[in-house]
Amino acid sequence: MQTVYLDNSSTTKPCEKAVEYITDSLKTNWGNPSSLHTMGIEAEIKVSEARKEIANLIHCREDEITFTGSGTEANNTVIMSLINKKHIGNRIITTSIEHPSVLETVKRLEDFGFEVIFLKPDSNGVISLKELEEATNENTSLVSIMLVNNEIGSVQPIAEAAKIIKKKSPKALFHCDAVQGFGKLPINVSALGVDFLSASAHKIHGPKGIGFLYCKKGTNFSPFITGGGQEKGLRSGTEAVPLICGFAGAVEALPELNSQLKKQQELYNYAYDKLSEINSVKINTGRNSFPYIMSIALEGYRSETVLHFLDGKGIYVSSGSACSKGKLSFVLKEIGLDKKIIDSTLRLSFSRYNTKEDIDILCRELYNAAKTLRKA
Amino acid sequence: MQTVYLDNSSTTKPCEKAVEYITDSLKTNWGNPSSLHTMGIEAEIKVSEARKEIANLIHCREDEITFTGSGTEANNTVIMSLINKKHIGNRIITTSIEHPSVLETVKRLEDFGFEVIFLKPDSNGVISLKELEEATNENTSLVSIMLVNNEIGSVQPIAEAAKIIKKKSPKALFHCDAVQGFGKLPINVSALGVDFLSASAHKIHGPKGIGFLYCKKGTNFSPFITGGGQEKGLRSGTEAVPLICGFAGAVEALPELNSQLKKQQELYNYAYDKLSEINSVKINTGRNSFPYIMSIALEGYRSETVLHFLDGKGIYVSSGSACSKGKLSFVLKEIGLDKKIIDSTLRLSFSRYNTKEDIDILCRELYNAAKTLRKA
Repeated sequence: MQTVYLDNSSTTKPCEKAVEYITDSLKTNWGNPSSLHTMGIEAEIKVSEARKEIANLIHCREDEITFTGSGTEANNTVIMSLINKKHIGNRIITTSIEHPSVLETVKRLEDFGFEVIFLKPDSNGVISLKELEEATNENTSLVSIMLVNNEIGSVQPIAEAAKIIKKKSPKALFHCDAVQGFGKLPINVSALGVDFLSASAHKIHGPKGIGFLYCKKGTNFSPFITGGGQEKGLRSGTEAVPLICGFAGAVEALPELNSQLKKQQELYNYAYDKLSEINSVKINTGRNSFPYIMSIALEGYRSETVLHFLDGKGIYVSSGSACSKGKLSFVLKEIGLDKKIIDSTLRLSFSRYNTKEDIDILCRELYNAAKTLRKA
Repeated sequence: MQTVYLDNSSTTKPCEKAVEYITDSLKTNWGNPSSLHTMGIEAEIKVSEARKEIANLIHCREDEITFTGSGTEANNTVIMSLINKKHIGNRIITTSIEHPSVLETVKRLEDFGFEVIFLKPDSNGVISLKELEEATNENTSLVSIMLVNNEIGSVQPIAEAAKIIKKKSPKALFHCDAVQGFGKLPINVSALGVDFLSASAHKIHGPKGIGFLYCKKGTNFSPFITGGGQEKGLRSGTEAVPLICGFAGAVEALPELNSQLKKQQELYNYAYDKLSEINSVKINTGRNSFPYIMSIALEGYRSETVLHFLDGKGIYVSSGSACSKGKLSFVLKEIGLDKKIIDSTLRLSFSRYNTKEDIDILCRELYNAAKTLRKA
């Protein structure tokens, strides 16, 4: 059975280059980068080359990149840093549709006396810059806004937000969780105006277990994981060299982002048009949205039922995000969708490896699902 | 040039089974364990099988194992948990020769009002149970003692310590950093009487970037990394499935520990006898110490000079631990060694792959080093 993988926002297939670099590191370059001998130095060089590869992609300095065990850890690092250092005030601003690694972590800070403001998105999943401006005051220590939402692909106006924050509270730090945008949208951290940016390898055909935190030169954070002082004291624990190499391999294998974005938009539009032809399908995302994530509902059918039907046909999609694992999506609630639609919603998330044929197969089986399955 | 790797306490060569499992996971089983479709379930099964493999080795339940990004993260998790939960008192007891991932982290807790007692070791690197008993009071929330020291291989009396702690302060939690002992000494967590135990894959021929925290059923800790709620809410972030599989591969490939320990003791004794024949060599560790770590000094020669000399001959050793990266070893200071000896100390750390021939080559080149190099 041909499989059609449309769950790329959950995780992606590691690309050949990533696998090659990981295996090479495991077999021939397995020294500890902290060791003073040749094998240590060789491992350290690999880490440094990988850091350069990633820094180039987001147009920053190598020493602005700290490797972490995941995007989640990178997000935790920025937020939990506030409990250790002198911060300028006790206000944190974020959005109500952030990834749980931001939402759950800012909530922990409430126990440490912080006040957290959750900006609400509009029906397209985009926050209001006016509300951000009103919320930002001199008491604001941190603003954390994601680049691309993981369920509905809405893209936040990060560069504009940065300007507002710096104007209203020049010392406030601005963090962007770019896990879903990194390697898909071109990112220039200076142009975005962020102080921190998080990303992860396994969303761009790299391995699971590795992410990074960009921290703008001159900005500081307190280490989240302390110990042997690896990563210049910013993240302790022996560097996961094979994964770091695999991350670099995935970045190296990325196509040119702008032209890829166009191709992806074509595929997205193709899917949009084909899906629109199916009677029961309602598409929650817009026709010209971020082309890697499409949210659809097969109206009248519970999403898990459809998910399992498609699974039986070798088609892999998600109901909400992978993290939510069956819970009702808070993101879809926040953008004001009806409970009935939420209950029927599926997330299709694409990669550069998906084809129009994949879409055809999906559409055929969604049509069959509507014909075969009993309505909820 | 034949290479002789004697830095196995820094990191080890991934064994074939570990590499095989990692590559297999990267290539054919790369789903996200949180995904509800077949690919997610298949990945989840792999994680569950790995958990079982590891749980068996330390004689615990599967649900007592939480995967982490490193041994360092596991140590941080236990210690930092104290800032979030209601603890019984503000005293923490540890030793002055713990790994930095414990030492640096307990020091952070001082900022949160904790008082940290550092037990001093004797000249063999072993703490006094009497001092532990005196230090433990009803105000004690956590005791953290390592199983095997990473620089001198001293083995702490964990089971005896557990009895004392439970007698003096029944609610105090007992954590054991077993990174250097796991997979080498047989471990039965119930017999040891610990509530928490940390370990890491890359010290036993598994991959870097993965460790675990054992937490006794009925004992709780606050999650250190929060977010999507993976690992039953105890450690968020997409599971690093390939590394988890690699960890299981490394455990599966372990020889029977007791007989291996005997073999290793033979090799250690062989090295001990051969090294004793070299005039300038002073062996800091005892003849029947933990057979994976030997601390020696080439008296009169700076350890880094000797390290680089050996490096040129393809022999890889360490001066102190990998983490200390050239800094004067606090462990050797704590056991009362002269500064001159500390300056000359090298750590030899063995694995099951080392042979008597390796020792012969080392001895030949140490002899040559003493003949060739200028004294400090």
